[in-house]
Amino acid sequence: MTNSTITAPKGFLAAGLHCGIKESGRPDLALVYCPTGARAAAVFTTNAIQSAAVTVCKQHLAGGSICAAVINSGNANTCTGVKGLAAAKTMCSRVAGELKIHTEQVLIASTGIIGHQLPLPKITAGITQAAQQLGESRTAGQNFAHAIMTTDTRCKQAIRTADIDGKTVTLAGTAKGAGMIGPNMATTISVVTTDIAISKPLLAKAFKNAIGVSLNRLTVDGHQSTNDTAMILASGLAENSPIKTQDAGYRRFERVLADLCSDLAKQMALDAEGATRMFKVEVNGASKQDDALKAARAVANYDLVKCAIHGGDPNWGRIICAVGSSGVKLDPEKLSCKIGPVFVFRRGKPTKFNAKKVSDIICRKEHTITVDLGVGKYHDFCYGCDLGRDYVTINADYHT
Amino acid sequence: MTNSTITAPKGFLAAGLHCGIKESGRPDLALVYCPTGARAAAVFTTNAIQSAAVTVCKQHLAGGSICAAVINSGNANTCTGVKGLAAAKTMCSRVAGELKIHTEQVLIASTGIIGHQLPLPKITAGITQAAQQLGESRTAGQNFAHAIMTTDTRCKQAIRTADIDGKTVTLAGTAKGAGMIGPNMATTISVVTTDIAISKPLLAKAFKNAIGVSLNRLTVDGHQSTNDTAMILASGLAENSPIKTQDAGYRRFERVLADLCSDLAKQMALDAEGATRMFKVEVNGASKQDDALKAARAVANYDLVKCAIHGGDPNWGRIICAVGSSGVKLDPEKLSCKIGPVFVFRRGKPTKFNAKKVSDIICRKEHTITVDLGVGKYHDFCYGCDLGRDYVTINADYHT
Repeated sequence: MTNSTITAPKGFLAAGLHCGIKESGRPDLALVYCPTGARAAAVFTTNAIQSAAVTVCKQHLAGGSICAAVINSGNANTCTGVKGLAAAKTMCSRVAGELKIHTEQVLIASTGIIGHQLPLPKITAGITQAAQQLGESRTAGQNFAHAIMTTDTRCKQAIRTADIDGKTVTLAGTAKGAGMIGPNMATTISVVTTDIAISKPLLAKAFKNAIGVSLNRLTVDGHQSTNDTAMILASGLAENSPIKTQDAGYRRFERVLADLCSDLAKQMALDAEGATRMFKVEVNGASKQDDALKAARAVANYDLVKCAIHGGDPNWGRIICAVGSSGVKLDPEKLSCKIGPVFVFRRGKPTKFNAKKVSDIICRKEHTITVDLGVGKYHDFCYGCDLGRDYVTINADYHT
Repeated sequence: MTNSTITAPKGFLAAGLHCGIKESGRPDLALVYCPTGARAAAVFTTNAIQSAAVTVCKQHLAGGSICAAVINSGNANTCTGVKGLAAAKTMCSRVAGELKIHTEQVLIASTGIIGHQLPLPKITAGITQAAQQLGESRTAGQNFAHAIMTTDTRCKQAIRTADIDGKTVTLAGTAKGAGMIGPNMATTISVVTTDIAISKPLLAKAFKNAIGVSLNRLTVDGHQSTNDTAMILASGLAENSPIKTQDAGYRRFERVLADLCSDLAKQMALDAEGATRMFKVEVNGASKQDDALKAARAVANYDLVKCAIHGGDPNWGRIICAVGSSGVKLDPEKLSCKIGPVFVFRRGKPTKFNAKKVSDIICRKEHTITVDLGVGKYHDFCYGCDLGRDYVTINADYHT
């Protein structure tokens, strides 16, 4: 079987295993290694309360080349004070010791419950074991993808290739995230590997832009976690002539990277806690850019819209209500709304539409809601998912 | 049985019946009448899309004395264009015809599904019938309270008395609201009657302030409907010397009115769609007033907190996460959180607490979450309720 995991791009080894954080016995420790050293970039949560892993990861990212990233699931290492900070550093130094690299060359991310200290002896033993298991097989990449999962029901992976200078560049990514997914950051934990040769500033720019139109456009419950981290590692082994300016090669890379990240974002939406389907909200006719995004997010975050979609109900009144309460400028006489290609509300008036047909559109795995505010030329979009009973079940029964 | 309905204050007659809007056969038309004329005030939704009833009600409120208010449930009369506007006016003129008053002396509110035209012949016939049934009995008041309900499982009523100048002044209110309850306005439909003699400007001021600390502090799902209306009618028959300045009598009235409205707000929280319990979020130590309220609302609106409360789980990490993502200024080293009287997080560190004891506190009908941001002296509060599976069931299965 073709390798479509994060070990597919040249120069990466990975491992994933159960070290003992999760009581369920599921994998909870993931390691990726780039022996030749990689250019790296990342985007982080903007929550005022941040995991110790985020603090340490930012410090290491500010330095030179990165050789590895370690991620644990099952414990967020957040609100854990100086002890938590020391634990995050120990995780990096243990990885460095095993791989004979510098501690500052290791990125780190944690995800899981807030406010508990990490079981450090179990994790350091797990790191040693993971370092021994590092491999470039498909299985190794799969193990990594599984080890970053929390309430996800399936692992999310995506792969793309791009032709740059006649060379094939490969990009692969994995992400975890099912709840607590807000739109203000590189939602949840995502790791992207690529073998493109590119300067660090341009890698960071491309990644930030790609995240901006993919993971940052996804909202499951409007919540932003304390641990959101998306990182990209570029080994530079694809043999393309290194990208140093925003030329055609750069633009192609950025486009393919955005496509890869959108793929991951959609997989997250479809695996959101309790979700059974996803939707895109496109807002046109806004008087300014911010308003377009604000209105799109308001609709995607609106529990009553999400419930109606869960029920396959073309309850457009809730969409209009969400837009109206979002605080954006609109013209009630020109406001329009489509579900799929069907106008359900046009220039301030309800239309006569085939409810069964529109319900069928909503019941698809993915559909688009289009809103025209009727006051300008700006547009933007957002992804969302339905709200099912299981969201409550999962989040009420998930005990600390 | 004592009359604790809106017909308890002197000078009010009420009626409520089924006129045919709701297919279920439940009451859907309510009428209140003050033969001697009343001073009136109201607060309305700030949603950019508003019901025709809101438009007409605002126009009539700007005039002189008010003698009646008509409310229908089962249909919001929103997004219904000029036809909907004409229908709202017709409802008022029909009431005026039956009661021999002016159309402009009738207030109006509608609640229910958006985007459908009112079944006007049924409603006008119902108004004639309601006018004939007007009475000042407890039953008449109960009928009114039932006729404004939508997905409410029980009617909400509250009554208070105040001693003003040695005279007993009575205030009574009823409210409907179970979902789509956001904190930016006089949530949903509320009607308060009182026999106090007071100037119109002071009645409006007292009502606005009372709503500000009660209904406007309640959030069920953060959604603001297109129809939110809260109105108060004062008959002036209590024989107190009319309140014309902000004296001790005014202040007592405002305090009792706020208490009445808080009672209604709590009843709404406890009857929120799918909710089983409610909570208050108190935020202290904010660097400015807005931040205190913003943080309180962020916690009360946070689905993951609401789910944890539904599950009786002291998952304080989600509270901290909500506060952190709310965008308010805070000091991570001084941030503290209590559930009931128990510190679960103190000055940036988790505490050791008795999880069983804290779970018991959460499982009460009502508890308080206290957060200290550690950066100032401002404080504010908000009411919320848990998020149960039935919220989804109700809102996914409620079909247009």
